[in-house]
Amino acid sequence: MNMITNHLPTAELQALDAAHHMHPFTDANGLATKGARIITRGKGVWLTDSEGNQIIDGMAGLWCVNIGYGRKELAEVAARQMEELAYYNTFFQTTHVPAIALAAKIAELAPGDLNHVFFAGSGSEANDTNIRLVRRYWDVKGQPERRIIIGRKNGYHGSTMGGGSLGGMAPIHAHGGMIDGIVHIDQPYWWGDGGDMDEDAFGLERAQQLEAKILELGADKVAAFIGEPVQGAGGVIIPPATYWPEIQRICDKYGILLIADEVITGFGRTGNWFGSETFGIKPHIMTIAKGLSSGYQPIGGSIVCDEVAATIAEGGEFFHGYTYSGHPVAAAVALENLRILQEEHVVDHVRDVAHPYLKQRWDALADHPLVGEAKLVGLMGSIALTPDKAKRAKFPGEQGTVGFRCRERCFANNLIMRHVGDRMIIAPPLVITPDEIDILMDRAKTSLDECYAGLKADGLVTA
Amino acid sequence: MNMITNHLPTAELQALDAAHHMHPFTDANGLATKGARIITRGKGVWLTDSEGNQIIDGMAGLWCVNIGYGRKELAEVAARQMEELAYYNTFFQTTHVPAIALAAKIAELAPGDLNHVFFAGSGSEANDTNIRLVRRYWDVKGQPERRIIIGRKNGYHGSTMGGGSLGGMAPIHAHGGMIDGIVHIDQPYWWGDGGDMDEDAFGLERAQQLEAKILELGADKVAAFIGEPVQGAGGVIIPPATYWPEIQRICDKYGILLIADEVITGFGRTGNWFGSETFGIKPHIMTIAKGLSSGYQPIGGSIVCDEVAATIAEGGEFFHGYTYSGHPVAAAVALENLRILQEEHVVDHVRDVAHPYLKQRWDALADHPLVGEAKLVGLMGSIALTPDKAKRAKFPGEQGTVGFRCRERCFANNLIMRHVGDRMIIAPPLVITPDEIDILMDRAKTSLDECYAGLKADGLVTA
Repeated sequence: MNMITNHLPTAELQALDAAHHMHPFTDANGLATKGARIITRGKGVWLTDSEGNQIIDGMAGLWCVNIGYGRKELAEVAARQMEELAYYNTFFQTTHVPAIALAAKIAELAPGDLNHVFFAGSGSEANDTNIRLVRRYWDVKGQPERRIIIGRKNGYHGSTMGGGSLGGMAPIHAHGGMIDGIVHIDQPYWWGDGGDMDEDAFGLERAQQLEAKILELGADKVAAFIGEPVQGAGGVIIPPATYWPEIQRICDKYGILLIADEVITGFGRTGNWFGSETFGIKPHIMTIAKGLSSGYQPIGGSIVCDEVAATIAEGGEFFHGYTYSGHPVAAAVALENLRILQEEHVVDHVRDVAHPYLKQRWDALADHPLVGEAKLVGLMGSIALTPDKAKRAKFPGEQGTVGFRCRERCFANNLIMRHVGDRMIIAPPLVITPDEIDILMDRAKTSLDECYAGLKADGLVTA
Repeated sequence: MNMITNHLPTAELQALDAAHHMHPFTDANGLATKGARIITRGKGVWLTDSEGNQIIDGMAGLWCVNIGYGRKELAEVAARQMEELAYYNTFFQTTHVPAIALAAKIAELAPGDLNHVFFAGSGSEANDTNIRLVRRYWDVKGQPERRIIIGRKNGYHGSTMGGGSLGGMAPIHAHGGMIDGIVHIDQPYWWGDGGDMDEDAFGLERAQQLEAKILELGADKVAAFIGEPVQGAGGVIIPPATYWPEIQRICDKYGILLIADEVITGFGRTGNWFGSETFGIKPHIMTIAKGLSSGYQPIGGSIVCDEVAATIAEGGEFFHGYTYSGHPVAAAVALENLRILQEEHVVDHVRDVAHPYLKQRWDALADHPLVGEAKLVGLMGSIALTPDKAKRAKFPGEQGTVGFRCRERCFANNLIMRHVGDRMIIAPPLVITPDEIDILMDRAKTSLDECYAGLKADGLVTA
């Protein structure tokens, strides 16, 4: 076997990485000059790098390691399933036990009549599935003109041509283009865009953009609306309380399918099994991935309500699917992950223990001179960095410069925290304990202080 | 742990499957009525179903289980990696050893200067990456008008909006639509489309459609051509010997990037490491998946040549990537799979043992009254079913009806063989032995005989 545990020295690994490995969302030449940090181990909320640093992971990998790293039970399930049936397809009137068991378990956990699962390998693939599902649905219903899907600017739904188009990130659209029949409304980001409006009024106004867009396009042209209950990659934008009820009302009124992208918010992140429960959304389709397997395996899917699934079935063959749809090893590992989430009451832990404890400390960050707002739902939080709290001001120049400086301080202090523009965000493993929250927050506070001191030294904030 | 080995009775599993599991490329109501066949175990080239049948797998899962099922070494690697570092991202200036080691190994195996790997979770995701890569490449080169990608009718490049659009399958386009800037030329399918032409002349003619299309569109508008060295899902269409050299000449002449989709043909399937070597293609980008991990894990990627990688890097950040790009468990398992392929000389076995042995028996099928042609490259073969060999005639009515009947006979005889329309196709695990080839071929012959007898009884062929 390849002894990848006994790895080469860091510099040699960095050179090989630069020579052969193209990183996602990365400036390759910049990274090659600097050398990538090499993560070698994970246990609970802790990571180790190739230099032996012990790092607390405030991002759960990439919003996914809900149960924490290093759970032996999942490794055992993976090995057993791989030996028993490492792969089989579900295309040609065949199936296998892991896919069946996982589909049934997801249907049990999902709210309402979301009882049917179309498996994919990732959230991106699942959102591509959703585009094809909702357009096919309206074809079968005899309304093929209903093709347009409405998303939000600064929403994120993956990086395939379909997922990237559903999302509202201009740099992604710029590299490859957008697919047709997708439009975007503004995001419910009060701190950044709300001006003098009251937060609740702003939430309503942003939701009502959906109605205006539907009327502009013609309701008979609109297939679906898609949104993340809480925008994740957009900077943990927690919408005003008025937002989702109004979106729901509008979708209901015009008979528009509602897709909740639960890739980040699913499986406990917001203190309920699904973010839709936290925000009172009743979607026809949910996109899932990440927390489904705690990231231990690449797996995602679409959870589909009875009526949509029945309509697709009425249409005969649905010409869509992936080689690794319902991959037996990925499905078996996901099932074991769900067992742990359920039997160890991890969602209760988020709601009753970790969120309340983190919230006290997170809210206190709002007093920091660099912090404009501190927001938290479940275990998903963000702070806005600002040179002027009262004015909710942005730093001059390119957005994200200060955020990047802050992230670099976090890295130096062995804390993984991410920046999106000049927002700092966290989403730690759901199993994080109060003691670990203290460590995370102490390091976050130190990093903010250091960042602030640096900005003062550079004359970018006033003392 | 979930004891998914001790499964429910078949009928209960089928009912749960029908209630909750949406299958890829399936008529759900039809399948629910019939009940899916439940595969429970795999070992070597053999599958077991929930009723205890022993089935020989002529399709290697779905063109992917190159090393055969049940290799304990891969299960051990998966478990160890999962316990050590189950997940980490490669986005934010971080990396990990499995992704580095796998990228370096792929660069070593790939021909020419294909030295850089952008990881994805599947062939679909990798082809979506390719669309964005080649368009970004021309942007950075200062030729943003070069956006169009030319594919082939009846080509297959996955099922995302991007992958499905690159492919030339009309039913896929119908369910969700196509993305813009992708056009298709005809496929090099001599038996079906060649009429009275000589096979080599036909291959040239079909390749020259590329030149005509480039001239029609304007060479300064064309970004890339994409093709599978051998069309797989299209029915194992092995092109005339004249085809690929002419495609290569045309791409070179007009400076068009050439993408070889090696998802099926990569990692030994054609008797070389890559189909491009078998057919003399020098691609700028290769799409890989399936055989990369022998399907034990969901992983794919794009292998990118030096010049394209350097150009992307010059452009600064490439805004693209997947949560599971380079997933550590998937990468570690793929690396172990490549070790087995290499150390056990599996590619040599295909070229020197399995292919020559299978070829004798496969070619003999051409004498069967139902078979119009029998084609084989490496361990990838197809036969055309016909009511009239001399005329290369198609069966009347809906294409695929006779193919489906034949596949049902194969299933009944415990042989997995697939039909594409009225072509029957095989792609067994690469480790298949001559004795196993005899079993496979005996069952194939029996199934063809039974299918033929049934067609005669129904008056669909003359005696």
